[in-house]
Amino acid sequence: MTELVRVGISLPDDLLRRFDRRIADHGYTNRSEAIRDMIRERLVTDEWSDDRDEVAGTFTLVYDHHQGELVSRMLSIQHDHEGAVISTLHVHLDHDNCLEVLVLRGPAHRLRALTDELRALRGVKHTTLAMTSTGKNLL
Amino acid sequence: MTELVRVGISLPDDLLRRFDRRIADHGYTNRSEAIRDMIRERLVTDEWSDDRDEVAGTFTLVYDHHQGELVSRMLSIQHDHEGAVISTLHVHLDHDNCLEVLVLRGPAHRLRALTDELRALRGVKHTTLAMTSTGKNLL
Amino acid sequence: MTELVRVGISLPDDLLRRFDRRIADHGYTNRSEAIRDMIRERLVTDEWSDDRDEVAGTFTLVYDHHQGELVSRMLSIQHDHEGAVISTLHVHLDHDNCLEVLVLRGPAHRLRALTDELRALRGVKHTTLAMTSTGKNLL
Amino acid sequence: MTELVRVGISLPDDLLRRFDRRIADHGYTNRSEAIRDMIRERLVTDEWSDDRDEVAGTFTLVYDHHQGELVSRMLSIQHDHEGAVISTLHVHLDHDNCLEVLVLRGPAHRLRALTDELRALRGVKHTTLAMTSTGKNLL
Repeated sequence: MTELVRVGISLPDDLLRRFDRRIADHGYTNRSEAIRDMIRERLVTDEWSDDRDEVAGTFTLVYDHHQGELVSRMLSIQHDHEGAVISTLHVHLDHDNCLEVLVLRGPAHRLRALTDELRALRGVKHTTLAMTSTGKNLL
Repeated sequence: MTELVRVGISLPDDLLRRFDRRIADHGYTNRSEAIRDMIRERLVTDEWSDDRDEVAGTFTLVYDHHQGELVSRMLSIQHDHEGAVISTLHVHLDHDNCLEVLVLRGPAHRLRALTDELRALRGVKHTTLAMTSTGKNLL
Repeated sequence: MTELVRVGISLPDDLLRRFDRRIADHGYTNRSEAIRDMIRERLVTDEWSDDRDEVAGTFTLVYDHHQGELVSRMLSIQHDHEGAVISTLHVHLDHDNCLEVLVLRGPAHRLRALTDELRALRGVKHTTLAMTSTGKNLL
Repeated sequence: MTELVRVGISLPDDLLRRFDRRIADHGYTNRSEAIRDMIRERLVTDEWSDDRDEVAGTFTLVYDHHQGELVSRMLSIQHDHEGAVISTLHVHLDHDNCLEVLVLRGPAHRLRALTDELRALRGVKHTTLAMTSTGKNLL
């Protein structure tokens, strides 16, 4: 179990007032929670720039499923990177367009190689790689 | 059905050579496809900065499911924003940590309001909002 | 004169340890200073998204000064936006390439309009807009 | 002298129409120029992620010059990184606040080390590192 520790920080009072207003605007009821979130964001960025860390991520593709061999190519690329794709979710946006989300896990460089291959496929209209964490180091 | 049109662009030969090498490194076999992808990325960014457009997105949360009321709060927030969440996917990362992806659709400002509420919850360790498109305008 | 206030925040000890290591890697000797910097970065981002605030920024251009009318066009655009450009600095990178930095001040939308015009000029190879603050609200 | 080469690319007509409208909104009168700019932006990002390349950049600091030893510390850090700072420009924002821009040149990792040291100084309120290019490879 993680221990909570209490630390004191000193801030100019005007800066504190502006910060409190900002986090309230974003739905925070608690200053510590907002600071923890800022810290965790930096740490996740670091994890993704270190190739030894295991990271998690989600890769979102919007594509036109009418495009020739696209669907089977997407599947075979995923199988080539066995173990990196934990699970996928598919949504039918309209008659032509599909959105698919792949939940990924592994070293950052492996996940980037996989997403590069998928992004370059003809018929894939837009992709985004959301970098997150396995949570283990983000207590 | 979309018509393909052919346009000519002029580039310094050195710039073209460096571009060709770069896209090959990222798995593209086709220069037009790489340029189309650069264009679509800009257009998606524009859609998200215009509050009238309907956009699509995915919101990824990593959280500790042991945290008190977290799971039920997450559900009730999603129900408060009825229609914005199309579907969700859940992955058990380890004994403590969950990863959940929400596929979202609606005007950008509505999606941001929803994700602000979820991010601020205690026990949510990391979130990322991946901005993509319904595909309709990205032929 | 600004008053420093002391506030307590609670953090999981593992998160605190990782944060302390990270900031030491980035040269901070003081935890409060690192947290103040994170807060100020968010506030500056907010200032730039609010069109009423007066912001400061620097706009960097790399260009080839041999390109026809480029230099005189750059000057006349700057004069069209009188008051927005406080001062400029010019560096000769090599025989062909110049780097120029414009220090800007004004409402964000005015600064963006100016930089759009300059970016689109033929012969301008690369530009970056660095968003910062007049400092007034960042005590 | 650089040769301009003409290449043909194929685009869906709707995508082309939206692209043309977008670049006109951003002040471009020429489709090739807009595509060249998109390409150069990617190449500059690559240069900064490769530690062997020599890059250029500008580092902007907003600080309160009343803060104890700040000014002399800033100078001595710059002298420790001899050769990396080509030139600096100083602007008095108001009675308390200064804005200073450093034009930098060297391998990316050296420039980052320098800017880390400056950012961590007490009294420095905000910094931004704008990554650009020496122009040599951006014909």
